[in-house]
Amino acid sequence: MATSHRRLNLNVGINPTGYLPNAWKYRSGSVKDIANPDHYLRLARIAHRGVFDAVFVSDMPLLRLGRDSRPGQTIDPLILATALTAQVPDIGFVATVSSTFNSPYNLARRAQSVDIMSGGRLVINIVSNFVPEVAANFGRDPLPPREVRYPRAVEFVDVAKKLWASWDRSREGEVPDDQFWDDSSAHTIDHDGAHFYVRGPLNVPRSLQGHPVIAQAGASEGGIDLAARHGEVLYANVLSRGAGHALGKKVRDLAVTYGRDPSSIRLMPGLVAIVADSREAALRKHELFSGAGSEDGLLARFVEAHGLDPATFDPDAPLNPADFVPDPNRQQALGFTLGLVDLLTHDSLTAREAVRRSEGNHRLLLGTAEEVADQIIDLWADGSVDGYTLQPPRAPDDIIEFVDKVIPILQDRGVYPREYVGDTIRERYGLPHPA
Amino acid sequence: MATSHRRLNLNVGINPTGYLPNAWKYRSGSVKDIANPDHYLRLARIAHRGVFDAVFVSDMPLLRLGRDSRPGQTIDPLILATALTAQVPDIGFVATVSSTFNSPYNLARRAQSVDIMSGGRLVINIVSNFVPEVAANFGRDPLPPREVRYPRAVEFVDVAKKLWASWDRSREGEVPDDQFWDDSSAHTIDHDGAHFYVRGPLNVPRSLQGHPVIAQAGASEGGIDLAARHGEVLYANVLSRGAGHALGKKVRDLAVTYGRDPSSIRLMPGLVAIVADSREAALRKHELFSGAGSEDGLLARFVEAHGLDPATFDPDAPLNPADFVPDPNRQQALGFTLGLVDLLTHDSLTAREAVRRSEGNHRLLLGTAEEVADQIIDLWADGSVDGYTLQPPRAPDDIIEFVDKVIPILQDRGVYPREYVGDTIRERYGLPHPA
Repeated sequence: MATSHRRLNLNVGINPTGYLPNAWKYRSGSVKDIANPDHYLRLARIAHRGVFDAVFVSDMPLLRLGRDSRPGQTIDPLILATALTAQVPDIGFVATVSSTFNSPYNLARRAQSVDIMSGGRLVINIVSNFVPEVAANFGRDPLPPREVRYPRAVEFVDVAKKLWASWDRSREGEVPDDQFWDDSSAHTIDHDGAHFYVRGPLNVPRSLQGHPVIAQAGASEGGIDLAARHGEVLYANVLSRGAGHALGKKVRDLAVTYGRDPSSIRLMPGLVAIVADSREAALRKHELFSGAGSEDGLLARFVEAHGLDPATFDPDAPLNPADFVPDPNRQQALGFTLGLVDLLTHDSLTAREAVRRSEGNHRLLLGTAEEVADQIIDLWADGSVDGYTLQPPRAPDDIIEFVDKVIPILQDRGVYPREYVGDTIRERYGLPHPA
Repeated sequence: MATSHRRLNLNVGINPTGYLPNAWKYRSGSVKDIANPDHYLRLARIAHRGVFDAVFVSDMPLLRLGRDSRPGQTIDPLILATALTAQVPDIGFVATVSSTFNSPYNLARRAQSVDIMSGGRLVINIVSNFVPEVAANFGRDPLPPREVRYPRAVEFVDVAKKLWASWDRSREGEVPDDQFWDDSSAHTIDHDGAHFYVRGPLNVPRSLQGHPVIAQAGASEGGIDLAARHGEVLYANVLSRGAGHALGKKVRDLAVTYGRDPSSIRLMPGLVAIVADSREAALRKHELFSGAGSEDGLLARFVEAHGLDPATFDPDAPLNPADFVPDPNRQQALGFTLGLVDLLTHDSLTAREAVRRSEGNHRLLLGTAEEVADQIIDLWADGSVDGYTLQPPRAPDDIIEFVDKVIPILQDRGVYPREYVGDTIRERYGLPHPA
């Protein structure tokens, strides 16, 4: 494809057993896969066959116990990124990293190291962590509130960017024979802020793509601000065309006030696709993979999740978005509830319709490979989104199915590449090189 | 070789341009090598050809500026370890990591992730950092004093070991069909200590070798204590037979008081070997690589380094170890001065002799390949040391020379393997699996 041609970007999540909590029951493989290097390598190779821009891993530095728990975030994402990019060519890697439980010098260094070793294939997905239990692995203090975590995250990336720019070997000039390097290619950053004091310079130079691409997932006001200041790829919850337009406009407008070029932001929301030979068969798979068991089960889950009154609930009455105001005190990512509110704001839906529009808090597509491909292209074609981060319900099964059945259709439609073009993930996303 | 046969263990440093500060002037390659993935891969492949147990990288989270500076610690060691073990089979990796500027949960997780991805080939060399400037990359506080850093390091490894043992999949039992895993295979650690509070469990399970092998380099009292409690491989300065015996006995005796098996500690001091066609030619290379230029230059550097009076200095008079008491206020690793004191305590030497016994603070071997091999075997044969961590003056040149000329002699003498045996680095070092 010509680089001037707008193309669909697709990442794919490689949560080792799949994205949906109950779908593992229907997957091939064993529980041993969660920490098996060969399993991750296999998933990355399947993704490479599908010409995905990148594989994606979510992360939390926490092992939940309990009968219904399911460890899915084991291997450190930057370590996994290094191992997989060393063994699989071309494909990028989106590694989720915490701005709350890392120091900017160490993280900037590690991420830049991965970006260098992979030849410019790293994306870091900055999260501030919203699960209170995580904090207990890092000291006696409780998780800082959102109002502290997000400003810290913004300053964290400020510092990282200064560090990534602090040693640029393209500035190296001639040096005398007895001098090893041109040390004027590096400079201290002397950052002295509200959360961090860092002298610098970083001891890792610029990478091929300047520095890792920065992805951002949160949709709270703090998350939007972080996205507008620093985000290059937004992994958000966008459940409808209207919501995609609205989020893109909101973030890009705010980005302009920060002096950024609005075209330097790519919207690649999460997507759950369930493909079957017919839409009816896809609905049945959805009921199984979600754990709800039936459409009534999906509706009952909806009632419970949103604290509705079962006595007055009518699954076929239009929903009012005002009934779904997110509770900031709940222990969940704010963006997940906001996604539903956005959906209901833009599309008039009954509960029976709404439960088929999102799963695992992301946009849900159900149907044949053709139908799924059509719906993917639909929101992309008019610029509501720039692509998607596919979250397969089961791994490897639903990655294989998508690669075998949906990818060829996207390729035949001319919106998706048949092979890798360009060297860095930044180039493939069409993002500018950092100044 | 039969596993019951005692064998020489050898690691090799892959500082990208070599160990000695001035030797880069005589190396092949360019300054670009310091952050070039292909260069590191080449060094690891050469080391693999030499059947080295592991490659070793020192580390400091700091880029020094100044005309005489030489960036040699760029790529994050655990990232480098992952990338190289993913591409080079068999060989282990010793990654230097800081207990002062990391949190135990994150580091335990990352290290265990590397150990899993590499199939049990990681060694972590725990350092507490002695260079004050490092602290300015992590906040406004100055570097904590040694009396704080070492107790913190001990507790850091305590916590890491608890975390590594907190999720053991060999404890997994049968679970009902609708349950993903046996969560009783993991447990919280509820560590509440002087420096750290960590609830656990770790979200990464046991690796093939249980957990990474723990190496330790410091030789101060705090360093010895850390080694006795936790060290499995000691990368110390041992310049003579007597010093090797004394250090080994000191650490192992103390280890016994902590309830450890003294045979679970391997002494693998640093070693600088300069090989030439004759001893005279090796002496000349030493003068060049050290930057001293001549034997008089070596002596002048000795006088200055130890604050001796040039007016009364006699290079041919026996040295008195009492004149070399390390100054705890000096900004250097205490072990480096202690190494010289130990040498002079055990061997009566003039300054002219002493300057040929160590370089870069490590034991120096000068001569033909045969002479160097003899001296390596000499201290190993009677158990003064278990092996060495070779620090080649130039990389790749001196690694290639050692592999081509010295390794075959060690193999012919039957003390060193011709190929890799066993799977994990723990096995190759003859260290016990953690309980």
